[in-house]
Amino acid sequence: MSTTSVRRTSTTLADGRELIYFDDSEPFVSGAATRRLDDPRPLVDRFAPVVGDDDVARPIESPELRRDPLTGDWIPMAANRMNRTFLPAAASNPLAPAKPGAAYSDGEIPAEDYDVVVFENRFPSLLNVPGAGDAITHSAGEELFVARPANGRCEVICFSADPTASLASVTPKRMRTIIEAWADRTAALGALPGIEQVFAFENRGKEIGVTLHHPHGQIYAFSYLTPRTQALLTQAREHFERTGGLLGRDILDAELRSGKRIVLQTEHWVAYVPFAARWPVEVHLAPRRDVPDLPALTDAERADLATAYLELLAMLDRFFVTPDGDPITLPYISGWHQAPVREGRDLSRLHLQIFSVLRAPGKLKYLAGVESGMAAWISDTTPERIATRLQEVAR
Amino acid sequence: MSTTSVRRTSTTLADGRELIYFDDSEPFVSGAATRRLDDPRPLVDRFAPVVGDDDVARPIESPELRRDPLTGDWIPMAANRMNRTFLPAAASNPLAPAKPGAAYSDGEIPAEDYDVVVFENRFPSLLNVPGAGDAITHSAGEELFVARPANGRCEVICFSADPTASLASVTPKRMRTIIEAWADRTAALGALPGIEQVFAFENRGKEIGVTLHHPHGQIYAFSYLTPRTQALLTQAREHFERTGGLLGRDILDAELRSGKRIVLQTEHWVAYVPFAARWPVEVHLAPRRDVPDLPALTDAERADLATAYLELLAMLDRFFVTPDGDPITLPYISGWHQAPVREGRDLSRLHLQIFSVLRAPGKLKYLAGVESGMAAWISDTTPERIATRLQEVAR
Repeated sequence: MSTTSVRRTSTTLADGRELIYFDDSEPFVSGAATRRLDDPRPLVDRFAPVVGDDDVARPIESPELRRDPLTGDWIPMAANRMNRTFLPAAASNPLAPAKPGAAYSDGEIPAEDYDVVVFENRFPSLLNVPGAGDAITHSAGEELFVARPANGRCEVICFSADPTASLASVTPKRMRTIIEAWADRTAALGALPGIEQVFAFENRGKEIGVTLHHPHGQIYAFSYLTPRTQALLTQAREHFERTGGLLGRDILDAELRSGKRIVLQTEHWVAYVPFAARWPVEVHLAPRRDVPDLPALTDAERADLATAYLELLAMLDRFFVTPDGDPITLPYISGWHQAPVREGRDLSRLHLQIFSVLRAPGKLKYLAGVESGMAAWISDTTPERIATRLQEVAR
Repeated sequence: MSTTSVRRTSTTLADGRELIYFDDSEPFVSGAATRRLDDPRPLVDRFAPVVGDDDVARPIESPELRRDPLTGDWIPMAANRMNRTFLPAAASNPLAPAKPGAAYSDGEIPAEDYDVVVFENRFPSLLNVPGAGDAITHSAGEELFVARPANGRCEVICFSADPTASLASVTPKRMRTIIEAWADRTAALGALPGIEQVFAFENRGKEIGVTLHHPHGQIYAFSYLTPRTQALLTQAREHFERTGGLLGRDILDAELRSGKRIVLQTEHWVAYVPFAARWPVEVHLAPRRDVPDLPALTDAERADLATAYLELLAMLDRFFVTPDGDPITLPYISGWHQAPVREGRDLSRLHLQIFSVLRAPGKLKYLAGVESGMAAWISDTTPERIATRLQEVAR
């Protein structure tokens, strides 16, 4: 399958948000429909310069980025998200395709069918508000209180028009289309002004707070480097200065030499439980060739990824079983760690991280004082136990 | 009240763990009882050198610290914790005092009453295993796979003998005793070989995975600096080099000048919602005087802290209300950020961080892809809204 079989159609919703169809099957979905939404985009609608207590006109309802003076982290203040949709009934699934005569008044997608669709989130944490700029301000005139507009973009990607499907249940052909969409969005969002990195991820399962059960992921374009990416760059830089090697490459080679935590190998991809896995279930999937991000993958690597990704998800769904031996659908978080747009591209190596907070059937790992208060993770298992179980359930 | 009114009695349980009573009321609890436990300490019992696949004798069941080559973080592998007690029935509360004739076969505390008691956790993530040493090893001979024994200590602190009490419900006198116990443990654990920092914290509420409802906290002695503490030291060092000031002092002064996020002031303490609060509810409580840790507090500061801490907890329990206007007991995580034992003591300033994952009645903030995958926090509210609500419920 070549990339040319995917048709990309971009359109604009009535409230100004962009929506893009990625169709892989004829007859292609008509991407022209832009059904009117009943309520306008909350943020843009409220965007009106007002005079704040410092006598400067500014959009008070647009998200603000504040720098935590204690940690140096940037924290978006997205107060508009407080009232977002939370587990709506199936009849009001906003990610379902529009159906004539059905009550989808809160639906997001104007077309009556789709293969894969991406659109801007109605409740974004990061948003490029026209005219907001990117200037640093000092709140209350204090040098330590640094803020700036929370530039960025938050997108939703629907993996299927079927609300009962899951990413694990799509065909390899559809998975390939999803990979094309991820690569497309990585390139397109990375080209937007001020964007520093693009993060495509999926949260699956109510255990981790998924608010909509329709199969979907998210894509965040950050205007700053996230703390994990900063840590990865720091370690990769130290490793390069010390050894001259690419950290991601050398980790993969060490895992392949050690061998005991390898859980899947294909022509172009290797999956392994990392040496210092911090979650009850954790797997990394990395390409054999050094590439910085998804757009850099060849056709052959993408095609192989489609089947490798699905095989990995199938193994994860066999990890835990009920007392009767029935497999337990694993709640998980998956995310693509890609090279930043500008900084440290030559130090970065693409990999997918999939992990779960389920530590046993019905038992969750909670992030409490040690994790949330000190950012210090503790594993209740060992990477070798995780790997052994995944090797058992491999087919 | 002076510190001399607290009687400290240290004893050793039958399985070798230390247990310390802090009694503040006559007749003092007899601290001599060391009731035999039915099952021996899992880790120590299993400590037996075996020959591993690298032909080196080592304790395979003792917790191991592994360095994550991607992030540089140390991750304890505490596989022994997988089977720890999870929400036992009230009749088998292991933190209740021993009662003659009752079925407390799994109880931890030998005395029939206590005021405040501290003891080593039966299921520790960190443990100084005799003879384990602290030598770095390279797993599978790989330079990138760095490990060492997970030296450290995990303690439990019971705030009351009453299983239906909470920290918020204890008397100021008892709160003062708890502060004495925290200070005692900070000094004692910090003096142990190889310990780098001491973290006293409390997880309250089943929403954050509390496994025992009996009012208690935990105290961790880490043999490494946690990622948050490392970040604080990095920022404090940069701030000092740039301005010559102590970061914690200058943040407190900026919050006091700005004023709008101050929620409580006493003679010796100030509570404020930090400028870049990342949680739906978050408050920091800091002393007016520059001190590195709890042992450095004066008697007057400790006495004032006892009432200030209780007042803060009372305000937090009025933060959310039911539709009928009844207050909702807030699930929270609280933790004392103290100066490390060795590194950066002159850069550190004591403060308590209290935060909640509750973003509205019945709605939790989940840590999903952005937080758990990228360590990037997003706030769904603003610090000023949190502060305004706390100011409303202040008395």
